[in-house]
Amino acid sequence: MFGTPWADGTASISQCAINPGETFIYRFKVPKAGTYFYHGHYGMQRSAGLYGSLIVDVAKGEKEPFQYDGEFNLLLSDWWHKASEEQEVALSSKPFRWIGEPQTLLINGRGQYNCSLAAKFNKSSDVPTCQFSGNEQCAPQTLHVQPNKTYRLRLASTTALASLNFAIGNHKIKVVEADGNYVQPFVVDEMDIYSGESYSILFKTDQDPSQNYWISLSVRGRLPKTPEARTILNYSPSSPSNLPNSPPPVAPIWNDYNHSKTFSNKILSQIGSPKPPPSFDRRIILLNTQNHIDGYIKWSINNVSLLLPTTPYLGSIKFGLKGAFDHKKPPQTYPIDYNVMMPAPNTNATYGNGIYMLDFNSTVDVILQNANALAVNVSEIHPWHLHGHDFWVLAYGDGKFTKEDEKKFNLKNPPLRNTAVIFPYGWTALRFVANNPGVWAFHCHIEPHLHMGMGVVFAEGVHLIGKVPNDAFSCGLTGKILNHKG
Amino acid sequence: MFGTPWADGTASISQCAINPGETFIYRFKVPKAGTYFYHGHYGMQRSAGLYGSLIVDVAKGEKEPFQYDGEFNLLLSDWWHKASEEQEVALSSKPFRWIGEPQTLLINGRGQYNCSLAAKFNKSSDVPTCQFSGNEQCAPQTLHVQPNKTYRLRLASTTALASLNFAIGNHKIKVVEADGNYVQPFVVDEMDIYSGESYSILFKTDQDPSQNYWISLSVRGRLPKTPEARTILNYSPSSPSNLPNSPPPVAPIWNDYNHSKTFSNKILSQIGSPKPPPSFDRRIILLNTQNHIDGYIKWSINNVSLLLPTTPYLGSIKFGLKGAFDHKKPPQTYPIDYNVMMPAPNTNATYGNGIYMLDFNSTVDVILQNANALAVNVSEIHPWHLHGHDFWVLAYGDGKFTKEDEKKFNLKNPPLRNTAVIFPYGWTALRFVANNPGVWAFHCHIEPHLHMGMGVVFAEGVHLIGKVPNDAFSCGLTGKILNHKG
Repeated sequence: MFGTPWADGTASISQCAINPGETFIYRFKVPKAGTYFYHGHYGMQRSAGLYGSLIVDVAKGEKEPFQYDGEFNLLLSDWWHKASEEQEVALSSKPFRWIGEPQTLLINGRGQYNCSLAAKFNKSSDVPTCQFSGNEQCAPQTLHVQPNKTYRLRLASTTALASLNFAIGNHKIKVVEADGNYVQPFVVDEMDIYSGESYSILFKTDQDPSQNYWISLSVRGRLPKTPEARTILNYSPSSPSNLPNSPPPVAPIWNDYNHSKTFSNKILSQIGSPKPPPSFDRRIILLNTQNHIDGYIKWSINNVSLLLPTTPYLGSIKFGLKGAFDHKKPPQTYPIDYNVMMPAPNTNATYGNGIYMLDFNSTVDVILQNANALAVNVSEIHPWHLHGHDFWVLAYGDGKFTKEDEKKFNLKNPPLRNTAVIFPYGWTALRFVANNPGVWAFHCHIEPHLHMGMGVVFAEGVHLIGKVPNDAFSCGLTGKILNHKG
Repeated sequence: MFGTPWADGTASISQCAINPGETFIYRFKVPKAGTYFYHGHYGMQRSAGLYGSLIVDVAKGEKEPFQYDGEFNLLLSDWWHKASEEQEVALSSKPFRWIGEPQTLLINGRGQYNCSLAAKFNKSSDVPTCQFSGNEQCAPQTLHVQPNKTYRLRLASTTALASLNFAIGNHKIKVVEADGNYVQPFVVDEMDIYSGESYSILFKTDQDPSQNYWISLSVRGRLPKTPEARTILNYSPSSPSNLPNSPPPVAPIWNDYNHSKTFSNKILSQIGSPKPPPSFDRRIILLNTQNHIDGYIKWSINNVSLLLPTTPYLGSIKFGLKGAFDHKKPPQTYPIDYNVMMPAPNTNATYGNGIYMLDFNSTVDVILQNANALAVNVSEIHPWHLHGHDFWVLAYGDGKFTKEDEKKFNLKNPPLRNTAVIFPYGWTALRFVANNPGVWAFHCHIEPHLHMGMGVVFAEGVHLIGKVPNDAFSCGLTGKILNHKG
């Protein structure tokens, strides 16, 4: 969105949290068609289920660059039996208590627990077959299709933790859109999808119509302790209650990162898409580490763990307040001798709430540098999501980014996205133009990681921001000012 | 307090909740000397430890009606190992999950867990003796006294759940103050103290000064699963690290309610205290029941479980808003044929947020009527606390209150208090003058019970309320009005 930075929905950044029972109306102009989703951006409310799809259709008279006969929309998520408030307490405790893996993966809010649709195909068949009549509120949403058609499937992942792999048994899938941007179409058997990402894929119903087929979702990047999620692709006139005869798709090995990198590198912009500026005005290098602060476990960026202020940045900047946040510049890089392959020699970090002030319309490169976490031989996947902009993904690389790695940048047809992953011990290079007046979060989309401080804040063109609704700033120092005008 | 109803500190009633990181200044005139305490009044923050003592000294030139040589202040509380947020989630879950008994009783925030100061006196000595050097932050606070003196001990209970019994081994205690009001002094061996109550007691150091003595705290009214709390009364020149030679005081049996009633009935107002008006203008009968709402377990008053509104009553009334809460009158009594000795025939209740509007300066009688909870043969103790007023406790009775019971009212020297208990299957009659313009909570001071809806709201003289600070009303509908004035 442009022109309405107060409608971004980020508590402490673009507005005050909406208190229980209060209403807040978001009004913004939708800039382009595509597959999106919305979710709560306070505490761990996304984990609690506060999310939904947001599909923007092409404008009247305009056409998508591909054709299809029908459309489905699947929002993917993960689910814990412990309430999100209990998870927050656990993560913020000393000693630290990890929330563990989700109990269930959900497709449009529906999943299976203690039973499996595909139990008869399980090798160690200790889980019974799920008994659904199909009409239960919790029954998996069956995708009903006609033979010999092309369908568009919109996929988005709002998982709190899980990185996912998606497959339709016996069907190829053609990727055509990523994060609301058309991509150069390519065909795969299965695909990864990280939290924060969205895709459109096309598939042809070119298989035996007397059968049904599995739709399957599995965990990537973490030793999977969560059963695969499943639903049914139902060919007409086959009965939707017929379980597929063939076994479900075999998920790639969870830690086969080369498999994941191959997929990520296939995503390129559609011909005719905007190209990145050939050079950058500013480069910010962000080292991702896991740290200790006063005995708590945190994630830090260049050794600073984000602790959001009481007064939203957008308000305190608009109102010209001092003291609402730290006006010192946060670190632009990390020590040159830091060994990203090992735990930090000194694991201590600090809290911070400073922001990266970007020159308006400047071209910014961000190098996300992954590293070893607190434990030896551990480095995790982090999908980083930028608010208010798309960025070009110039390259993914292994080890420590150096100036030499610029040679690997794809400046010809890099994909435009709003979320990009860093792989274990790797780096990811992004480029964007700071052309959207506002204050914007940039953070790991894994919700417990963000809760533990894994994010930074960018701001640009704040002098150009127009009127903001007072409703958005009724808390903290801005709230005090508004109250005393009355 | 008078004249500052916005400074009462009750979220949703007298003000908006103070959001994380925000400040709010309470400014009020202290009307009289006494022993008080303060605590958070949102969610279950009291259980989380958000409380402290508030001691008001007599004004210069004035004297207490008793003498003493030294003074101690003990704030009593209970402690769970599960975070209060987790407790809130459990209580608000379907199926309901009870929080269980506290792990520890605390004296000035200090307690013992998995060890006992008096282990050698325990019959089943499976718990080791606590090893304190005395300087630890968690070590019990020893009371150092000189022989042959009189000490004042201020006691207040801010427990979330536990009703308590307090004793000093080998010492008599003289009760002289209750809830900030002087009482007719009386002497006991031990005393009950319920959540919300405060007392001053006097004791003489008339025992063998070569010994130390136990100070002991035990649970009443619930099968005690929490060990007794202990600290040491240390006579000079005896070493504070000498544990007493005599066994700790024996606590009364937890369900000996006659014992408790005897104590409560001993509390009478000091000669010369204000007497209650001889008659009432309005009588409100409040039946206390445990109920179901949509499968959740709640507490209800006349079948209505309190669910507080988003906009604080005080603000919505001052601003003249409609629609911020239910303006229908809540029920004044309960069906005449209701059997308080049995579970309700229909256990379903409803949510409500209506308020009892009281005529200014009218005399109000409240009959708190206890009843059977959801399970057969269960009726619990509830200490009811009134904001903004003291009330006279006219009588405690058993069974169902009837007009005949008026004969039992003590109109001569009933104690003035702000908290009074209802005993299992009993009733308690209170009288107060609605002379304090404001909106006032009246509720069970057991925090999980209030969280489950066990309260009502009174309001009086709202047209007489002066200016209220806008800061108190920056949420909900009042917040919207304030923001749009800007």
